[in-house]
Amino acid sequence: MKPEIRYEPLKNVRVLLAPGRQSRPIQLKFGNHDRGKEKCPFCEGRESMTPPEIWALSDDPGRKPDTPGWKIRVIPNKYPALMPGKKPRPQFIDSIYEKMDGIGHHELVIETPEHNMDISDHPVEFIAEILKVYRLRYRELWREPTTKYVQIFRNWGPLAGASLPHPHTQILAMPFVPEYPQRELLAMKKRPILCEMLQKELEHGKRIVGETDDFVAFAPFASRFAFETWIVPREHRPDFGEADDDELLQIAGLLKSIVTGLKRAIGEFSYNLIVHSMPDRYFHYHIEITPRIAGLAGFEVGTGVNINTVLPEDAAWKIKSSF
Amino acid sequence: MKPEIRYEPLKNVRVLLAPGRQSRPIQLKFGNHDRGKEKCPFCEGRESMTPPEIWALSDDPGRKPDTPGWKIRVIPNKYPALMPGKKPRPQFIDSIYEKMDGIGHHELVIETPEHNMDISDHPVEFIAEILKVYRLRYRELWREPTTKYVQIFRNWGPLAGASLPHPHTQILAMPFVPEYPQRELLAMKKRPILCEMLQKELEHGKRIVGETDDFVAFAPFASRFAFETWIVPREHRPDFGEADDDELLQIAGLLKSIVTGLKRAIGEFSYNLIVHSMPDRYFHYHIEITPRIAGLAGFEVGTGVNINTVLPEDAAWKIKSSF
Repeated sequence: MKPEIRYEPLKNVRVLLAPGRQSRPIQLKFGNHDRGKEKCPFCEGRESMTPPEIWALSDDPGRKPDTPGWKIRVIPNKYPALMPGKKPRPQFIDSIYEKMDGIGHHELVIETPEHNMDISDHPVEFIAEILKVYRLRYRELWREPTTKYVQIFRNWGPLAGASLPHPHTQILAMPFVPEYPQRELLAMKKRPILCEMLQKELEHGKRIVGETDDFVAFAPFASRFAFETWIVPREHRPDFGEADDDELLQIAGLLKSIVTGLKRAIGEFSYNLIVHSMPDRYFHYHIEITPRIAGLAGFEVGTGVNINTVLPEDAAWKIKSSF
Repeated sequence: MKPEIRYEPLKNVRVLLAPGRQSRPIQLKFGNHDRGKEKCPFCEGRESMTPPEIWALSDDPGRKPDTPGWKIRVIPNKYPALMPGKKPRPQFIDSIYEKMDGIGHHELVIETPEHNMDISDHPVEFIAEILKVYRLRYRELWREPTTKYVQIFRNWGPLAGASLPHPHTQILAMPFVPEYPQRELLAMKKRPILCEMLQKELEHGKRIVGETDDFVAFAPFASRFAFETWIVPREHRPDFGEADDDELLQIAGLLKSIVTGLKRAIGEFSYNLIVHSMPDRYFHYHIEITPRIAGLAGFEVGTGVNINTVLPEDAAWKIKSSF
């Protein structure tokens, strides 16, 4: 069955139903850095195990697609949550439900041929190269006629939902604006709330984690996750796709400091990297780093409210002092 | 630091900040059924390791509190997410944020002296006894002047966020109505949506999992989790606290069938049990069983949209056919 998007009005939620993803390989226990390497489909030399590549970074101008010799590789997800197709139309069902075809794109950015290397383990310049690939595919996917939103996200570690350890980022081009970016857009349409937050955070400084010329990193006041950190452009900038190379280098530097600092402070940890961005003048793009140390339990699933055991002020201090 | 409730207007979210919970014992790997038994604070004979009990079920009328001889035991959580106190007042901060004291109650129902026994492993009559304790504490906690909502939830297994394997249920009396019950209430105020859903589900039957005289269990159309199942009263009933003994026995029977059926079908699995209920005439109470087979990854955390790989229609068939 092809993916389907279902909407239900009791909780006012949409769900992506993707039965094809059931068959994807899942390797939940990572531990040993080499675990799973012997049959990892993302390792160099196993290019034929993935769908044909969309793009690759290589030093070798003569390299043929789907062969070794790449540094970063973009492929379609073999087990996509959304699939290309005609612009979907919502269908009403039983006069209460709604569904539409799960149309869109689901790509993977394989960040390195190395089987186990966190994004923060690269030199800042190479992290910026990975961010450039995000930008490239982000821009490209916004050009698709079915795209209403592009979600870039990265799962690192089993508690963050990574199903394979080989470092990769996922990009989903979606036929609707999902809940959180939508809420953020609504809030930002009422007032430039992220600009205001930034100003206040800079004033008292206690939740600031790092700064560059054009970016500020801070632990949000109502952090949903312990050690959650956001990287935000100082000026009001809607779209990550408009970031220039120097800005990506600054983001890369902050990212490396935050993740490395936190690893020094608390040891290896699972986390998500989430880009919230859209080409809407009210939007203010930002990158969220959400460590996943405790699981989301019945309380969170039942209420939609997270319990966080680390004060953002303490988190900011701890990360900063471990740089 | 005492618990604090923080609100942030960008995502329109509330978070419970409970730094005191950092020190709680966490045992993430369960596996072996006896694991952790040698120092489990919830096992019989270790009553002095918990705060003084609130209530207990015992066959021995001469039993003293906090001694062995109990069958079900209710205690305050030693590491509470909310603590009793004066009615909290929201304070505005920086003219953008809001916080209030984390006032409320956080109780644990220790369901059995047995170290490792899922609720579904008990005879139906004993499951009903556990549900009676839920009802008792639920009613009592609604009487507290600071209570605006009571969340009953149960985490079973490490992927469901359980931090200790000894079977227990948590009850939180909260000073605000959290997001999901609030959304449900709003939807139900517009139209009797759960009554309508039930009627439609019964008509075509393909997502029905089980039925009794007064309850229907079904896999929701937009299930957020694989094999998610809801138990719903046939008639419009707002409040779980008003359920009579016979109704609790029916819920117990459905619960046992669903969890046991699913274990037969897919093996041991982590899940949450969530009661959504409130004494508001528009509300229609229901119990959600949310299996936690795949983790919530960056996509879910970033978008608020879940990816589910099992069609609810297939889930219903699989559970039903394994009864």
